[in-house]
Amino acid sequence: MKKNLAYIYAVQKDLSALYGIGALLGWDERTHMPRKAVSSRADQQKVIHDLIYDTMTADKLFESLQCLSNDSLTGKHRVVVDELLKEVVKVRRIPRAFYQELVKTVVMAQAAWEDARRKNDFTSFAKHLTRVVELKRQEAVHLDPDKRPYAVLLNEHEEGMTPEKLTELFDYLKTELIDILNTIKATARFNEQVPLDIRMSQARQKNVIDKMLRKMQLPRDRTSLDISTHPFTIKLGANDVRITTRYIDPLDAFFAAIHEAGHALYELGIAKKYENTILFYASSVGMHESQSRFWENMIAKNRSFWEGFYPYFQKHVAGGLPLDQFYRAINQIKPSFIRVNADEVTYGLHIILRYEIERDLIDGTLSVADAKDAWNAKMKHYFDLTPATDNDGILQDVHWAGGAFGYFPTYTIGSIYASQIYNHLTATIPGCSDQIAAQQFKPILSWLRKHIHSKGKSMLAEQIMADACGNGLDPKEFVKYLRDKYIPIYEG
Amino acid sequence: MKKNLAYIYAVQKDLSALYGIGALLGWDERTHMPRKAVSSRADQQKVIHDLIYDTMTADKLFESLQCLSNDSLTGKHRVVVDELLKEVVKVRRIPRAFYQELVKTVVMAQAAWEDARRKNDFTSFAKHLTRVVELKRQEAVHLDPDKRPYAVLLNEHEEGMTPEKLTELFDYLKTELIDILNTIKATARFNEQVPLDIRMSQARQKNVIDKMLRKMQLPRDRTSLDISTHPFTIKLGANDVRITTRYIDPLDAFFAAIHEAGHALYELGIAKKYENTILFYASSVGMHESQSRFWENMIAKNRSFWEGFYPYFQKHVAGGLPLDQFYRAINQIKPSFIRVNADEVTYGLHIILRYEIERDLIDGTLSVADAKDAWNAKMKHYFDLTPATDNDGILQDVHWAGGAFGYFPTYTIGSIYASQIYNHLTATIPGCSDQIAAQQFKPILSWLRKHIHSKGKSMLAEQIMADACGNGLDPKEFVKYLRDKYIPIYEG
Repeated sequence: MKKNLAYIYAVQKDLSALYGIGALLGWDERTHMPRKAVSSRADQQKVIHDLIYDTMTADKLFESLQCLSNDSLTGKHRVVVDELLKEVVKVRRIPRAFYQELVKTVVMAQAAWEDARRKNDFTSFAKHLTRVVELKRQEAVHLDPDKRPYAVLLNEHEEGMTPEKLTELFDYLKTELIDILNTIKATARFNEQVPLDIRMSQARQKNVIDKMLRKMQLPRDRTSLDISTHPFTIKLGANDVRITTRYIDPLDAFFAAIHEAGHALYELGIAKKYENTILFYASSVGMHESQSRFWENMIAKNRSFWEGFYPYFQKHVAGGLPLDQFYRAINQIKPSFIRVNADEVTYGLHIILRYEIERDLIDGTLSVADAKDAWNAKMKHYFDLTPATDNDGILQDVHWAGGAFGYFPTYTIGSIYASQIYNHLTATIPGCSDQIAAQQFKPILSWLRKHIHSKGKSMLAEQIMADACGNGLDPKEFVKYLRDKYIPIYEG
Repeated sequence: MKKNLAYIYAVQKDLSALYGIGALLGWDERTHMPRKAVSSRADQQKVIHDLIYDTMTADKLFESLQCLSNDSLTGKHRVVVDELLKEVVKVRRIPRAFYQELVKTVVMAQAAWEDARRKNDFTSFAKHLTRVVELKRQEAVHLDPDKRPYAVLLNEHEEGMTPEKLTELFDYLKTELIDILNTIKATARFNEQVPLDIRMSQARQKNVIDKMLRKMQLPRDRTSLDISTHPFTIKLGANDVRITTRYIDPLDAFFAAIHEAGHALYELGIAKKYENTILFYASSVGMHESQSRFWENMIAKNRSFWEGFYPYFQKHVAGGLPLDQFYRAINQIKPSFIRVNADEVTYGLHIILRYEIERDLIDGTLSVADAKDAWNAKMKHYFDLTPATDNDGILQDVHWAGGAFGYFPTYTIGSIYASQIYNHLTATIPGCSDQIAAQQFKPILSWLRKHIHSKGKSMLAEQIMADACGNGLDPKEFVKYLRDKYIPIYEG
């Protein structure tokens, strides 16, 4: 047993190093790599991916884990062995040739998607998407032939979640979100234009962001902040978590940096004892997103926060807009075509729309040929909008081209978890709003670290949430949060 | 034969990817990595180094190469097989345990060196240096037991060079350099202080550097320019060569960037047909250094260049210093303690001093205990200076702590080659000075690409130089270059 344990920990240390290297290759590709280096970078990525695959599928690892899974292990070792064996079994179920075919297909599909975006025409992309759907369904069958394929794909991102549960939850949420939206649309304020014109040099924007990240306790010596087209967070090692933002619009840069810093704080907060094991990762994608959204929406778009922070910021806002108007401007609700620009209320509807379509595509009850009509019909139903072009509709996201089916729901799972955390914290931390106003985030961060971050992947996300806040995934809390926040904004 | 050839090219492609990954890890460590990430980075480096070692020492590669070396190959295949086999044989001669011991020792020695630098005291570093010298000697014996150890180490950096040849060459050069220095010291101008005070924001410095790099035809889409404490160049792939500079002093930043761009142009100019083979590298370290020094000293510290470039630069120089004085200020000759700050004349003396000491250390005719005295005696002899502290003397360079014995001579080999190229170009390209004044570098770069860069590692450096300029390594050309340039500056 001791020999096998030492062996599997040594393998996990190598795997951590390989994941870290892969992360560096990816980070660099999106931040600093010269434009023409794509081909050598692809070769480098392939070498690392092959090594990870070979390491994960090595018979010796599998056999060691099988032996250990029959041993009377407890505590960390027990969870490490169970989780790693589960992962190894999964990777071993994907034939190497199939995996390579899948990688090739999504690379081509992403290029086709970019091409289709340039032409603003879904047609040429449809056959690529059909092939991706087919292969993702096959992948699910490889992974677990006894399960509904979409359930398998969903579990790759959100372990423990089922389509049945999600459909029920989203059906409830959809009704509530449409109701909130209709309430807001019926107010006089809905059609008011709040002028918001912020002028800051890039250097100044970076200063403000740095100030905020330090308030959030993001450690300078374990992180970096760079620039990329699409902001992201990536972990290269226990003391090496990198975030990016973009400087197009000062508020976009600010909120994006805070969002990514929320992701980074999660990664940095995972218990040290899990370093170099399979447990040194987030419990689920949804839980990861809850951390970014918590800081972006619940904290940085909070009225209390701006009561404290706005005096410092106001001089950069044209006309020195009063706090009330500024707060309303950054929390405007407006049905729109594009998910990434959506507000807190309509974002969920964008996700539900995508969930329903991708679930049906994988189930085979919707064909790619009919997907655009389905998209537009749902847009009409949920938003009373009809996309004028494909780029404003079904072509807007790269996710499906990249094979990421079962990913979209995690955005809204993240919002729900974030609202549960926020409701819990405001109810249990005395003077929470005052702390937020004073940018005294230490008590909040300490709570997050203790109850969420430190757990890593040692427990299911829903169990972590139930232990932390008293309930598993609970959309009613999200609805309560939205009503508490937005009805006063529009009717107050 | 075909199967073996395909195999060895596939292995070289993997090796290229691994070297590229290792280069990225190193580049990132020196530019963007968070300070506390050292430990995970060391793990990542170790994984890659082990993979390279395992790939290079695999029996199948060795056997394929042995078969091929007996085949009637010609052209590129012949050179690739011979060079790769030579490399493989060398790596196989270093026992894995010895290699790991060596790596550990130099890591510790470098830490001890940093510590000694802080204390400004050579004593605590001496025992580490003794161990490094011992292991480097052993390494040389592993590599070739029949050769003088220092000759083996020298060949690792400058293939084809011998200590006997180098001693003769440096003895000649030493006499000449001391003579030039004495001539200069006897002039009235030697003691004149030229005031040089340049004021430019970092953004402005970067603009000027960018302008110059574009003039040098450094392609934006295949390179990057970052910041690091010590400027360096590193190749991650055929279209991915990165340089750095530092912004402490505007002229230092400018010349350092040009120096590194010279290195980068070399890497970028190696013939495409050698990509992903062992020939896709510089012919020698000295040849590499010749390219950086050519651009830094022969071009960017050239009077013609500043005739064209100074009008653009002058407004940043305090008092708008006239061209003549500016030119003299950037080409001041002054014996000093520190190699990295040395001028073109005294730099060679710094190198010869180090060469003589490191050669004798490896030969065993000088002990580490006596090295400091030897250093100071040579400083007195060559420069008429005595270091007041160890940091100004034997502790100033990290090279020996890092195990780089046989490296120092390549700096001066680079200067000699650069002078040969410069003398050849000014004699053979019509209007060469006018082109330099007009920053029209295309004809010069075309010549360098055709005669130097493109060859990669397919020929010995000296043969490339002989073909290009009519002579192998020729210190007389360097002496001529120095006299032609500096006597007019001081006596003109």
